[in-house]
Amino acid sequence: MSNPTAAILVIGDEILSGRTRDANMHFLAGELAAKGIDLREARIISDSVAGIAEAVNALRARHDHVFTSGGIGPTHDDITADGVAAAFGLPLGIRDDARALLAGHYARTGLEMNEARLRMARIPEGAVLIDNPISTAPGFSLENVHVMAGVPDIFRAMVASLLPRLTGGLPLLSQTLRIERGEGTIATPLGELARDFGDLSFGSYPFIQNGVYGTNVVVRGTDGARLDAAMARLARIAAAE
Amino acid sequence: MSNPTAAILVIGDEILSGRTRDANMHFLAGELAAKGIDLREARIISDSVAGIAEAVNALRARHDHVFTSGGIGPTHDDITADGVAAAFGLPLGIRDDARALLAGHYARTGLEMNEARLRMARIPEGAVLIDNPISTAPGFSLENVHVMAGVPDIFRAMVASLLPRLTGGLPLLSQTLRIERGEGTIATPLGELARDFGDLSFGSYPFIQNGVYGTNVVVRGTDGARLDAAMARLARIAAAE
Repeated sequence: MSNPTAAILVIGDEILSGRTRDANMHFLAGELAAKGIDLREARIISDSVAGIAEAVNALRARHDHVFTSGGIGPTHDDITADGVAAAFGLPLGIRDDARALLAGHYARTGLEMNEARLRMARIPEGAVLIDNPISTAPGFSLENVHVMAGVPDIFRAMVASLLPRLTGGLPLLSQTLRIERGEGTIATPLGELARDFGDLSFGSYPFIQNGVYGTNVVVRGTDGARLDAAMARLARIAAAE
Repeated sequence: MSNPTAAILVIGDEILSGRTRDANMHFLAGELAAKGIDLREARIISDSVAGIAEAVNALRARHDHVFTSGGIGPTHDDITADGVAAAFGLPLGIRDDARALLAGHYARTGLEMNEARLRMARIPEGAVLIDNPISTAPGFSLENVHVMAGVPDIFRAMVASLLPRLTGGLPLLSQTLRIERGEGTIATPLGELARDFGDLSFGSYPFIQNGVYGTNVVVRGTDGARLDAAMARLARIAAAE
């Protein structure tokens, strides 16, 4: 029995233009590893309805879950809901339950419920709302596609709302050994170790510090005893002449 | 005349597992913006020859340039060259010029040129080497696909070696205005501004600070005078009651 798989789709120009460095993907990767959902792929695309629809359809066919980040606010460039609705061939209208949530929020905060803000109540028919405890405007899940905001605080809050209703698997465990020898020196025994422990994954991350080559080896898997056994053999590789 | 387009393909498990936060994509995005090459898409995938080949073929058909990061070292999980060769239907063998580079480097440093290190001389026939001034093992360009290392220091050095031989376009300029009003309040005039300046792109990035909603609006384009004109109108939107 293997863990469910997932992809994340980050929508918007802010990362592609070099303006900001990703935060949501990094956060979600950690949450999914702990939940036992294997993040297999990430894509970052710009704001385009056709581009979003194409990526959503490619990813939802291939993974148990697709998580999107960005493009569900009130401005002209917030077109993620349009792209997701297009991917499923569904109409996109203002839904009463989402409108009621927003109306309550704006009544409490004294802000005007204008046409732009009402855009955030556009939810495809049949989608399940994702709670947004920070600024109310909800995300939504349509089948295996989970649509969330891009603002990091809100993204995190939505992930916290969503994850308890998804079925996870075995948490991904990892252990790291810092080895003061170059990758090329340990590559052969490391490859043999990886073959002998085919149920674990072995990542090899070289570094250079003060002119000396070293390697961080990260071992990942879901069985703690197997991880311990692999780490013991890795320690012998690290110590070998 | 529009700028050349590009995609980046990051290969390896370290970002998907949540272990590390992306650095190479962020660095390259900034370099490409300055060079006038439009980064349109990014993908992060795990180490799999078939997965790499599929992504390389999807991206090279769609963009003027594809930049890859990761998976060209000496260890068992370094299979990017295999994936790229498979994408092009080319054999992958040890090439004399790359072997000579490595032999010189290991002779100077006193390290053994073992079988694992020799893997780094596997370069597809016809590819142009990308210089690696840090640890010698080269990257390579095959048609419009540029294959580089994942270690951030080496990735940056390879980008510096590569970019001067690519033809860029007009550098992407950007200006940001911080507006102390919520996105929903400025969305309508901002949408009109974006329509009137269709040659520029307008990104709207909401924030919450001390309980107050605000919006950073980022305007991007290649024509400085148009950018200035848009910023002047944006300042009036920010100041409006």
